[in-house]
Amino acid sequence: MLPTLKRGVPVVEPMDAEQVERIHEASLSILEEVGVVFRDPIAIEDWKRVGADVRADDRVHLDRGLVMELIKTIPPNVEYFARDPAKNVELGGNKSIFVPMTGAPYMRDLDDVRRGPTIADLGTFHKLAHMMPALHSSAHHIVEPMDIVVAHRHLHITYSSIKHSDKIFMGMTTSPKNAEDVLDMCEILFGEGFLENHAVTTGNCNGNSPLVWDQVMLGGMRAFCRRNQPVLCSPFVLGGANTPASTAAAVAQLNAEALSALAYTQVVREGCPAIYGHYLSTVSMQSGAPMAGTPEISLMNFMIGQMARRYNVPWRTSNLLGGAKIFDAQAGYESAMTMMAVLLSGANYIWHSAGWNEAGMHCSIAKFVVDAEVCAMGYRMTQGIQWDDFDEALAAIRDVGPGGHYFGHPHTQANFEKAFFIPKLFDNNSVEQWYADGSKDIKQRALEHARRLLAEYEEPKLDVAKDEELRAYIDRRSREIPAVDALNEEY
Amino acid sequence: MLPTLKRGVPVVEPMDAEQVERIHEASLSILEEVGVVFRDPIAIEDWKRVGADVRADDRVHLDRGLVMELIKTIPPNVEYFARDPAKNVELGGNKSIFVPMTGAPYMRDLDDVRRGPTIADLGTFHKLAHMMPALHSSAHHIVEPMDIVVAHRHLHITYSSIKHSDKIFMGMTTSPKNAEDVLDMCEILFGEGFLENHAVTTGNCNGNSPLVWDQVMLGGMRAFCRRNQPVLCSPFVLGGANTPASTAAAVAQLNAEALSALAYTQVVREGCPAIYGHYLSTVSMQSGAPMAGTPEISLMNFMIGQMARRYNVPWRTSNLLGGAKIFDAQAGYESAMTMMAVLLSGANYIWHSAGWNEAGMHCSIAKFVVDAEVCAMGYRMTQGIQWDDFDEALAAIRDVGPGGHYFGHPHTQANFEKAFFIPKLFDNNSVEQWYADGSKDIKQRALEHARRLLAEYEEPKLDVAKDEELRAYIDRRSREIPAVDALNEEY
Repeated sequence: MLPTLKRGVPVVEPMDAEQVERIHEASLSILEEVGVVFRDPIAIEDWKRVGADVRADDRVHLDRGLVMELIKTIPPNVEYFARDPAKNVELGGNKSIFVPMTGAPYMRDLDDVRRGPTIADLGTFHKLAHMMPALHSSAHHIVEPMDIVVAHRHLHITYSSIKHSDKIFMGMTTSPKNAEDVLDMCEILFGEGFLENHAVTTGNCNGNSPLVWDQVMLGGMRAFCRRNQPVLCSPFVLGGANTPASTAAAVAQLNAEALSALAYTQVVREGCPAIYGHYLSTVSMQSGAPMAGTPEISLMNFMIGQMARRYNVPWRTSNLLGGAKIFDAQAGYESAMTMMAVLLSGANYIWHSAGWNEAGMHCSIAKFVVDAEVCAMGYRMTQGIQWDDFDEALAAIRDVGPGGHYFGHPHTQANFEKAFFIPKLFDNNSVEQWYADGSKDIKQRALEHARRLLAEYEEPKLDVAKDEELRAYIDRRSREIPAVDALNEEY
Repeated sequence: MLPTLKRGVPVVEPMDAEQVERIHEASLSILEEVGVVFRDPIAIEDWKRVGADVRADDRVHLDRGLVMELIKTIPPNVEYFARDPAKNVELGGNKSIFVPMTGAPYMRDLDDVRRGPTIADLGTFHKLAHMMPALHSSAHHIVEPMDIVVAHRHLHITYSSIKHSDKIFMGMTTSPKNAEDVLDMCEILFGEGFLENHAVTTGNCNGNSPLVWDQVMLGGMRAFCRRNQPVLCSPFVLGGANTPASTAAAVAQLNAEALSALAYTQVVREGCPAIYGHYLSTVSMQSGAPMAGTPEISLMNFMIGQMARRYNVPWRTSNLLGGAKIFDAQAGYESAMTMMAVLLSGANYIWHSAGWNEAGMHCSIAKFVVDAEVCAMGYRMTQGIQWDDFDEALAAIRDVGPGGHYFGHPHTQANFEKAFFIPKLFDNNSVEQWYADGSKDIKQRALEHARRLLAEYEEPKLDVAKDEELRAYIDRRSREIPAVDALNEEY
């Protein structure tokens, strides 16, 4: 696995300091004057306790002083601990990680067939995530395991993440009870008390934009905050549908929403890690569906990066998104435009970095492995320029002279691979060679590559006692939680 | 046509001031100590006349003072005049234009068949270039018209550019005689004496990297300089093959090469327009072929932008390059990664912006129209953030409030299209709708779109007298130049 990405190129900042303050002030005015709805009695009590102005039952008007005071205690950096300590990673400032996509109700499989996924399919994705060097996490429900009842799903998803990979993984926040189960399993894996001072997993709390946070998500968030585990505070932006038709105003709204949730994490537990999140899209007028790779998404990523840096909190974005129905050129354009903007925006927690197509409705195995390689390309670009052998390389220019060739020069032979990234899944042969190789498009090559990887996969074995304890936990909870197709909020 | 792109987002500058000077000093040392070969007796005489140190017949050692003095007179901006004055464009500083690809010996046609192109096919591409709003030029030999003898080709290529589009176009520099013919045709089109004070076309002078300029290219360059028409001074970088295996040293070499040619344009004619050029790739170890979209190409684009700005000269790069054999996801990733880096590098003359695949071996009609739309997306991003309706849009947030919808709000209805780019050729419908529409990939949709465009094409009629004069010129020159498959350097 590649270590934490340390950004060596500057970020793109399309707003000047005054414009950053304009967004900031607009967001704080929204929080004070429009307010944010927390559809959750516990959150309302919490807000009242810290002196927020709650009107109409659940509409919280947040004083700008209170918000800014609260978010001050969010740690600017997060150090994550993985089952394999060599795969620990860091977040914040110029440090970033790539995390695969999650949440797909469909998949495109090893034969490129679009179908409902199973827990075995999820295992396949966790294996691939484990093997791809640029992916720093096995995430959680990359695809939804439809063969497991909804109420038990989080247990099996978490076990699959843990079992198939020794990288960090994500934690389900689909209900407060589910979140507790995940955190209990983390406690088993890492040992009692470990979570209190070590981030090992990441929750996500999606907003109901505009300006609403719901009970289930807030309950999940609280579970993570109390156990000192980072949560992504993610307004869910469908630009033009649940925001104004203006990038600047959409960012002002999103920023207000993110600030309100970030502040709330600190009400729950002062000093707990929290990550400025968002899901970001603009919608098609025609279908109302979220689009990917549009110019406004790029601009909003740049802008949100500026806001998160203003508040000195780590931030999350979404990467390599495609709206295409298949793994065609559209998916390639959309994904790469997204990634380049994301990397140059300085995002820290770079989620949905592999597999996302059809606006998140499916995860494609072919796209998963290509995206992961494209992340490795982006990683290299973002590291910046290598200067260490500059003088040596200049000496080669003198040696070779006008009209010469560099392939045979010792400096070239020693440095070629380090100097220039050669993507495995992109074909750069002549057309004649490509014909001879079977005229395969990148989808075919990627699926063959995925099959090879899976054939070579070696499971990073869990400690036997821990494995047994995890299985026992799942068995017990599976008995306690009725096996129904509904999220468990009671047992 | 979209007007000249005026960049409203900052450029990415991965080098600090000291590193820029390090490259600069390295380049000047290369020019002084290693020297550059000008394989051309006239150029050697020119260099001797201005006091350069010429050794071993054709190796020119350029004093750093001389180089810097010479390039000072290059105009930092170029204003281009088109047949339709509404399509005049500008270059330099934060102003950029998109120009289609050129030079493809093969094409993929309206049925996606890969074959040799004809002059009629070239006309098809010129028509499409004319119709795509984000393309600012019809370029020249987008594809090579193989049905015309090599010696006469430049005449018919130039006529096709002029006839099918009233945008600016490029001028062939395949030989000094060819360049003169092109410029004579420009003189017919724009009127006697017009070229002397107006840029109407663009030549290109490719280097034989490392550190060689050849006679044919230099002759073409001189023809353009003498008539005061801009020339791209383009080192041809195959990173690792004809440069050291180091991005920083490759840029130092490229920069030395570009400076030597830029300086030479001013020896030919002080004050004539010239553009810092390059073709930029890294090569595959496996095939030796140029790759596209690699991290090092992105970094080198950022770096070259910094160098060109240091010298205050406009600069050229290549856009939306693909190495894929077909229009698959590989082509999409490569092209979009290239474009994002190019736009954020601040390049001015953004060549090869549509159609390039298979490392330039073919131009694809499907890719051409998609690339042109992706340029329009890039254009929008590069313009930056719209602030003009920010307060109005914030008012919409108050109107809509928590949990509301924006689609029905008057601000949304008035601003949606202006606020959010909706790509026509990207499918953002549901999968069900996509099935109902025939499950078409973007290639199929693009080819259908191209057919529709061509059916709707209206020729921007040439003035009849000028058209006759141009045809008479071509007829005369076709009689004077023997009809052979070799470049005309004599008649």
